Amino acid sequence: MEHLSQSFTIKYDYQVYFTTSLFSIENTLFNDFLTSSESGLGGRKILYIVDKGVVSVYPQLIESIRAYFNKYKSVQLISDILIIPGGEGAKNDETGFKQILEAVHTNGIDRHSYIAAIGGGSILDMVGYASAVAHRGIKHIRIPTTVLSQNDSGVGVKNGINYFNKKNFLGTFSPPVAVFNDDLFLNGLTDAEWRSGISEAVKVALIKDNGFFQWLEENSTQLVDRDRVAMNYLIWKCAKLHMEHIASSDPFESGSSRPLDFGHWSAHKLEYLTNFQIRHGEAVAMGIALDTVYSNLAGLLPHDETQRILQLLMKFGFEVTHPLLQIEEDNNAILTGLEEFREHLGGILTIMLITAIGQGVEVHEMDRGLLKEAGKILNNFQP
Amino acid sequence: MEHLSQSFTIKYDYQVYFTTSLFSIENTLFNDFLTSSESGLGGRKILYIVDKGVVSVYPQLIESIRAYFNKYKSVQLISDILIIPGGEGAKNDETGFKQILEAVHTNGIDRHSYIAAIGGGSILDMVGYASAVAHRGIKHIRIPTTVLSQNDSGVGVKNGINYFNKKNFLGTFSPPVAVFNDDLFLNGLTDAEWRSGISEAVKVALIKDNGFFQWLEENSTQLVDRDRVAMNYLIWKCAKLHMEHIASSDPFESGSSRPLDFGHWSAHKLEYLTNFQIRHGEAVAMGIALDTVYSNLAGLLPHDETQRILQLLMKFGFEVTHPLLQIEEDNNAILTGLEEFREHLGGILTIMLITAIGQGVEVHEMDRGLLKEAGKILNNFQP
Repeated sequence: MEHLSQSFTIKYDYQVYFTTSLFSIENTLFNDFLTSSESGLGGRKILYIVDKGVVSVYPQLIESIRAYFNKYKSVQLISDILIIPGGEGAKNDETGFKQILEAVHTNGIDRHSYIAAIGGGSILDMVGYASAVAHRGIKHIRIPTTVLSQNDSGVGVKNGINYFNKKNFLGTFSPPVAVFNDDLFLNGLTDAEWRSGISEAVKVALIKDNGFFQWLEENSTQLVDRDRVAMNYLIWKCAKLHMEHIASSDPFESGSSRPLDFGHWSAHKLEYLTNFQIRHGEAVAMGIALDTVYSNLAGLLPHDETQRILQLLMKFGFEVTHPLLQIEEDNNAILTGLEEFREHLGGILTIMLITAIGQGVEVHEMDRGLLKEAGKILNNFQP
Repeated sequence: MEHLSQSFTIKYDYQVYFTTSLFSIENTLFNDFLTSSESGLGGRKILYIVDKGVVSVYPQLIESIRAYFNKYKSVQLISDILIIPGGEGAKNDETGFKQILEAVHTNGIDRHSYIAAIGGGSILDMVGYASAVAHRGIKHIRIPTTVLSQNDSGVGVKNGINYFNKKNFLGTFSPPVAVFNDDLFLNGLTDAEWRSGISEAVKVALIKDNGFFQWLEENSTQLVDRDRVAMNYLIWKCAKLHMEHIASSDPFESGSSRPLDFGHWSAHKLEYLTNFQIRHGEAVAMGIALDTVYSNLAGLLPHDETQRILQLLMKFGFEVTHPLLQIEEDNNAILTGLEEFREHLGGILTIMLITAIGQGVEVHEMDRGLLKEAGKILNNFQP
């Protein structure tokens, strides 16, 4: 019998909003979003999941949310706001994920209701994953609270938790319905947290935008001094570059096009090997440094640009290497990261390197001898 | 700062093939599919997950698959073929789901590899869900072995497992990359299994296609006598109607449009309340009967068409009611199915009824008195 052909497209739209003090009573942005989207469906609810670390810095946050929904009643607030631990370690088992499912079940959250996550990248990843699979997908709102999540993971389409000791082994491609970047949350970050998100901006500048890299160099002092105007621009620009890349290529990575992952193969592995004692952004800075020096040793990147990149990373206060990145023998643990990276993305190994600041290039193998040499150079690097 | 807008579309395409003896060496259909799709990516693997019940009826199946991939080597067969129990009960805990994840992990299955599921709807649902979330989505091939999965669930875009005693509480919308309907598998079905899939054909005919309903009436004797030509047409036509509905409306059910779920609200609940002693198709037949009589009592459906529908269901050998469908008090268990149905689909309660054979209509409430009366009428129904 004649075979049957199925073909359809699904359209995804969402906005990333920038605001200050999202839950101030006079700030109508959040309520405007809720009232504008899909009216006509009654009985919508909103369940909040909040990062425990954020609540400890902003203990009044929970009450602000309650007061906000006490004034704006377009959607029914689930008064039992779920507070769960964040940080990459929280993604290593299913505890948080299952707590979220339990809250969805208990509160009768359906596919036309909302789950809003407030927190760093790990909370957003966990909540995004739970939202994507409960009832085959509940509308998910992200409210990222760190530089890293406001400029990178929080504005993208991925979610996930770790499993079998593999980063994001479980997850989906599932866009949020909206993202709200509130710069007040940045005040509560430690210096290490503040800095940590900057490495993703360096990364995207290196492979996409020479002008943005120059801006980062010119504004590095302000950024180190925690100037909020400079940081707001960094976040906006970095989020924009990430979002443009997602939309213009292959949003759900079904083909062989790659995400923006310069410096990430070793960074992911390093986080695991150190049991997440190193922050993602710090590991990314080390991974960028390694692949920058490797690009230079492989004859792709000029020496002076290599120096500029390492100097900028150090200006921001990043370490550029780690003992685990020193490859001493053939079965060095960090090298297994290459195969795991290939497996996670699928297909043949593809690593992003750079030929100039602002110009990425893909290669399909890495020379172990050059990696070993790159590790040594970084170990002895003086700015 | 100016907000950022994200917008993109994702295109989904897949074919549903009809064949006989899929893994005969001389049948190149499956291999043709594998070689035609995305060549250029080396190292692709295929992991098979097979329904234990299918293997017990076709013990030579596993060796046929091995022999097939011994001849056709476009993709590397994972020799460790996973055999797991099927049936709706298998979806009630995470055992099967986790076994599949374990096999993905152990065998290094990546996003450009394939997971092929052979079995009934439960196996397809479980494997589809695991495939959708492992590495954020591995290419999934469905090889349905029952009438029900060949004409309905297997050709659609949903997957899932049960959780918190709620049917498909966990799952995603995630189309397969291909479906292969092999009619040889139908030989191995019991009469109850053979019949069970017919109720979904009656369902789709009732809400979509009066001509198909007449065909079912005219061919009911052949279908009861297990005529394969008639059954092949039933499956093809029913699959076609389901696929057209999915593509033409809202494939991932993000808005308020509804799936083809006539008779399903009570069927889902009945399966649970009987601990899956009643097959899905049998429960659907009872659910169709209930909502047909309800449609008549509500003044929507003429008496003679009501009689024709009940007579056809009984001709196929279905029971048209069940003691649990007799509503005796206000908090009858089956009535909680209405709220659970609303919650799972989200938004306001929407129930499909019919105004004529081939003509569905949506209503937003059901009268308990009429439901009680419908149950009584069915309890005393004589064809």
